[in-house]
Amino acid sequence: MVKLALFGAGRIGKIHGRNVMLHPDAKLVALYDPYQPNADELSQALGCVQMTPQEIFADPSIDGILVCSATDTHADLIEQAVACGKHVFCEKPIDLSLPRVQQVVDKVKASKIISMLAFNRRFDPNFALLQQRIAAGDVGEVEMVSVISKDPSPPPVDYIKVSGGLFRDMTIHDFDMARFLLGEEVVEVSAQASCLVDGAIGEAGDVDTALVMLRTKSGKLAQISNSRRASFGYDQRIEVHGSLGMLTATNVNEHTLTSYTQDGVNSAKPLHFFLERYEHAYQSEMGGFISAIKGVDVVLPNMEDGLQSLRLAEAALLSVAQKRTVLLSEID
Amino acid sequence: MVKLALFGAGRIGKIHGRNVMLHPDAKLVALYDPYQPNADELSQALGCVQMTPQEIFADPSIDGILVCSATDTHADLIEQAVACGKHVFCEKPIDLSLPRVQQVVDKVKASKIISMLAFNRRFDPNFALLQQRIAAGDVGEVEMVSVISKDPSPPPVDYIKVSGGLFRDMTIHDFDMARFLLGEEVVEVSAQASCLVDGAIGEAGDVDTALVMLRTKSGKLAQISNSRRASFGYDQRIEVHGSLGMLTATNVNEHTLTSYTQDGVNSAKPLHFFLERYEHAYQSEMGGFISAIKGVDVVLPNMEDGLQSLRLAEAALLSVAQKRTVLLSEID
Amino acid sequence: MVKLALFGAGRIGKIHGRNVMLHPDAKLVALYDPYQPNADELSQALGCVQMTPQEIFADPSIDGILVCSATDTHADLIEQAVACGKHVFCEKPIDLSLPRVQQVVDKVKASKIISMLAFNRRFDPNFALLQQRIAAGDVGEVEMVSVISKDPSPPPVDYIKVSGGLFRDMTIHDFDMARFLLGEEVVEVSAQASCLVDGAIGEAGDVDTALVMLRTKSGKLAQISNSRRASFGYDQRIEVHGSLGMLTATNVNEHTLTSYTQDGVNSAKPLHFFLERYEHAYQSEMGGFISAIKGVDVVLPNMEDGLQSLRLAEAALLSVAQKRTVLLSEID
Amino acid sequence: MVKLALFGAGRIGKIHGRNVMLHPDAKLVALYDPYQPNADELSQALGCVQMTPQEIFADPSIDGILVCSATDTHADLIEQAVACGKHVFCEKPIDLSLPRVQQVVDKVKASKIISMLAFNRRFDPNFALLQQRIAAGDVGEVEMVSVISKDPSPPPVDYIKVSGGLFRDMTIHDFDMARFLLGEEVVEVSAQASCLVDGAIGEAGDVDTALVMLRTKSGKLAQISNSRRASFGYDQRIEVHGSLGMLTATNVNEHTLTSYTQDGVNSAKPLHFFLERYEHAYQSEMGGFISAIKGVDVVLPNMEDGLQSLRLAEAALLSVAQKRTVLLSEID
Repeated sequence: MVKLALFGAGRIGKIHGRNVMLHPDAKLVALYDPYQPNADELSQALGCVQMTPQEIFADPSIDGILVCSATDTHADLIEQAVACGKHVFCEKPIDLSLPRVQQVVDKVKASKIISMLAFNRRFDPNFALLQQRIAAGDVGEVEMVSVISKDPSPPPVDYIKVSGGLFRDMTIHDFDMARFLLGEEVVEVSAQASCLVDGAIGEAGDVDTALVMLRTKSGKLAQISNSRRASFGYDQRIEVHGSLGMLTATNVNEHTLTSYTQDGVNSAKPLHFFLERYEHAYQSEMGGFISAIKGVDVVLPNMEDGLQSLRLAEAALLSVAQKRTVLLSEID
Repeated sequence: MVKLALFGAGRIGKIHGRNVMLHPDAKLVALYDPYQPNADELSQALGCVQMTPQEIFADPSIDGILVCSATDTHADLIEQAVACGKHVFCEKPIDLSLPRVQQVVDKVKASKIISMLAFNRRFDPNFALLQQRIAAGDVGEVEMVSVISKDPSPPPVDYIKVSGGLFRDMTIHDFDMARFLLGEEVVEVSAQASCLVDGAIGEAGDVDTALVMLRTKSGKLAQISNSRRASFGYDQRIEVHGSLGMLTATNVNEHTLTSYTQDGVNSAKPLHFFLERYEHAYQSEMGGFISAIKGVDVVLPNMEDGLQSLRLAEAALLSVAQKRTVLLSEID
Repeated sequence: MVKLALFGAGRIGKIHGRNVMLHPDAKLVALYDPYQPNADELSQALGCVQMTPQEIFADPSIDGILVCSATDTHADLIEQAVACGKHVFCEKPIDLSLPRVQQVVDKVKASKIISMLAFNRRFDPNFALLQQRIAAGDVGEVEMVSVISKDPSPPPVDYIKVSGGLFRDMTIHDFDMARFLLGEEVVEVSAQASCLVDGAIGEAGDVDTALVMLRTKSGKLAQISNSRRASFGYDQRIEVHGSLGMLTATNVNEHTLTSYTQDGVNSAKPLHFFLERYEHAYQSEMGGFISAIKGVDVVLPNMEDGLQSLRLAEAALLSVAQKRTVLLSEID
Repeated sequence: MVKLALFGAGRIGKIHGRNVMLHPDAKLVALYDPYQPNADELSQALGCVQMTPQEIFADPSIDGILVCSATDTHADLIEQAVACGKHVFCEKPIDLSLPRVQQVVDKVKASKIISMLAFNRRFDPNFALLQQRIAAGDVGEVEMVSVISKDPSPPPVDYIKVSGGLFRDMTIHDFDMARFLLGEEVVEVSAQASCLVDGAIGEAGDVDTALVMLRTKSGKLAQISNSRRASFGYDQRIEVHGSLGMLTATNVNEHTLTSYTQDGVNSAKPLHFFLERYEHAYQSEMGGFISAIKGVDVVLPNMEDGLQSLRLAEAALLSVAQKRTVLLSEID
């Protein structure tokens, strides 16, 4: 039985905590959240104790930790986990500072812990299957990847001020997906961006609508389109064009009904947002982490993947600012 | 906490047992299966004790029973439950003999127990939504209901010999769905049927391919098409045509990918069979039973619904045999 | 150059007249319509002369006639064509009286003229392709055919009074399609029908909503669902279930746009009615007739097909009236 | 009756010539092609005379010309048409030299002739409807436009050598579509491109796979994805994301059949290439030209549109070469 402890009992912490409890081979033994109401509620709901961070790291029976706390605690917690030999499952981002992320990645690499950065979309059953099919050669050589990724509505401006902005908090998932599907490292990044959805976002120094183009060494191309607001719901689609054909993954919809009336033909909207759309992905990614701890040979998105996606975000920001194609090698 | 006991630890018993365990307000406290390996395996997996039927019925702490045992035990178990004041969740059919079913229905009606016949498809999220939309008037007055229902492959002939045949074991679900959606009792039944899939089924006196037409008092029509074999998987679709339009529920597919190659455009097959397709329906129906025991006012398919669908099956058999439209009032 | 003359310059006559003119190998040389305004308008539009029936039949340069006049003139015109050795393209039905139709069919069979009954749907590109694929074995042995056929709105009751009613004027197309796709003659017919759309139709002695089941000698089954009113437009779909799989032909829609808003996902309605939906079918069927006259070996729906579909309509009427399955052999 | 003369009796000339002949209000009276076999074949097929260019321009009965000849003759022919007061329908491009195009545009603007540059896709029924819906506010303010445009297979390298390359001969249509749908002039262009399909294209100095991003003054964004080879056929799709929702136009497919077998669910490929896909667009654009000559107030893509799209192509080339975002104001 894999024993895990959770840092952070907020929205995403609740999801991961529950998924551990649902897993037949794992148990959430403790959690910590400095905001006591959250800690109380979740520890009660899941039937686990509360511990201080010190207690968690000191407890030899705890195999690994789940880092779902505030972004500015991630890097420190990972380093402590390394120091204590505990495996780490960490919500993205590792940190908003690229040098700090590099430090963490170096330490993790030098250690023997299993580390996973929670790029949940890789575990979406459809996207995972898409990647398997590409890897199996179903569309021949990959030539172009298109990632469409739009949120139903923008987050509060207060969140945007601390999130690092659209490229670092939202596009970062799409960068990871592009890397996952291109199967080759990106070398060039171009981006264009605007503030079209909410003027307050622009006043906070961020954008809410963006396009990105990526290019790998061998010339494969990827494009990402982002908006903070899709009135019809969470728009999460992928197209991969290859030498032998195209593979697409459409949205997952609320139901399978279609109505036909004199007003037209009406079918279901996409599942509303990430909690609904990626419910299975969250279960599957936790399953992956637990399997890895149990010694199963699984490939997980790791800290290095977090670093690379953050570099792409930095490059996109630079591209917008300087109106030019940025070489990824410039970013470090 | 609702406490339940399970009769029958076979395939469907396992599903219902697990769904009880997953439910936050219920617990499976005991099970019984005369086939000891099944009983051992499931009691261990679910962490519940084994009891004899006598013990189960005698235990005042048990609120209700789940009847997932062999068909010929259903009627007796329901009657014992009535006698002991225990609620009953019963897999269909109640019995293959219409008079026996009538007896059971009468006893249940005279009692105060909550009884539910497990017409799982009513709880399929898409079909349930379809029914709600119809009831809300989305297509105006219902005029025609089409139920397409095909299994991926025929059951063993040995099963067919004891199941009562296609109309009683397979179409019965479609009869219930038609009743559920028509919102009015059927008065006339016509059927045509053939043995096209497997000659052994014909030798066993049954058919494997069938069409049925139903008519209600006010003239609403329904059609059912059945096959024991759809090479592409479980085909479970519904169309409802009304005065203001049409509502359809398509199959639920394995994934959302589509591939485009020089060979064509290829998308996902339907989920393979009922265990996959109706996974959520099984959870939801158990939730309904538990809610009802807790006093929530929910409408559940009951023993009377089982009786009416069996009458439709008998009428269909008679229609095929006598090549005529059968009045439901003839069947009793 | 094939030279044709047209009887009847109404709605369907205009379509066929124009399609002749658009054909590179044929010319409409004359037309006749007792209703002078129609005759004047169409002869002017198409640049052809008006002739009396006598003149048309007497003119040796005319290869064939297009019978688009009132139903009660069809049989006589076909017989005259036979007498004069002119090829005949005839709108359905040949006649509403089965014995009269039999007479005509016998005369046509004894002659050497090319005769075609305008079952236009066989020439719909999608349905034609469907039939070819079935014939090529794409779904193995055909086991069930489903024809969904609904008009956008009912015709005037005055039309219904002379049309022969739903089974003879509307379902007849579906009977032909079922025969076309079953590839085997029907031996049994059951039908259920109601008047749900418009009470005036019922007062006129007809129904507006109907289901039919057909069975061939080897046990293949077909079902037809009809309504005189589909609020969303012309509903013309087919499903064929066979031993190796299923082939479906969906509606043809007005456009390829889909809108995604907070109100839902909205796509195009089917093309409104037969003039839009079967535009290409009308061109293609006229092309088939002209090709046959030119000596090309093409299979066309003929007078015998008209007879058989009318027999199926008669059987359906009898089935509804007598509430029983009717053997087609009873109808003659 | 509008009288037109055709320059160029090749593939596209044949299409436009035939569409004139099919139009009730226009007539093709003459054609010229220096390649005599083409001239002979088409003049015979369409029943029109052959004239020299001098004769055409000198004939006062000819209202306008259709320029379907080699690209390097376009500019001169347009200038001659201006000089002779004849209306001009011209295949794109006007010329590959931007200054030359500017000269032509200036002359046309100073004249009173009706001029049309044949951006056929604006007349595709689906794309035209898409533009109308956007203009009607169906998706609110347009924020992002995505144009997917891939050919089934690359043209001969010899063509690429004279065509001006991918951005000038292929993407130019997508630039026009983006301008058509953005409803606002583009001010910034970024592009990335590769040679992935055919090495010979790279050796000829061109690319075969490309992504472009466009930005308007108010910050609206557009993205274009191009490939010279889509193994499944002509991929022509558009998505428009706006403040109130999204509108998409999918491919037009070969048929409406879907097959369901144990191998999967297979539906139709897109129509193979532009002749099939844009058949109706070609008819409609010729109708627009003829209507404009007849005095109807229609908006047509004009020479200025040709100039602007060519400027975008030049900007894209510069962006690829210099790895930077190019201001459209740099291009003149």
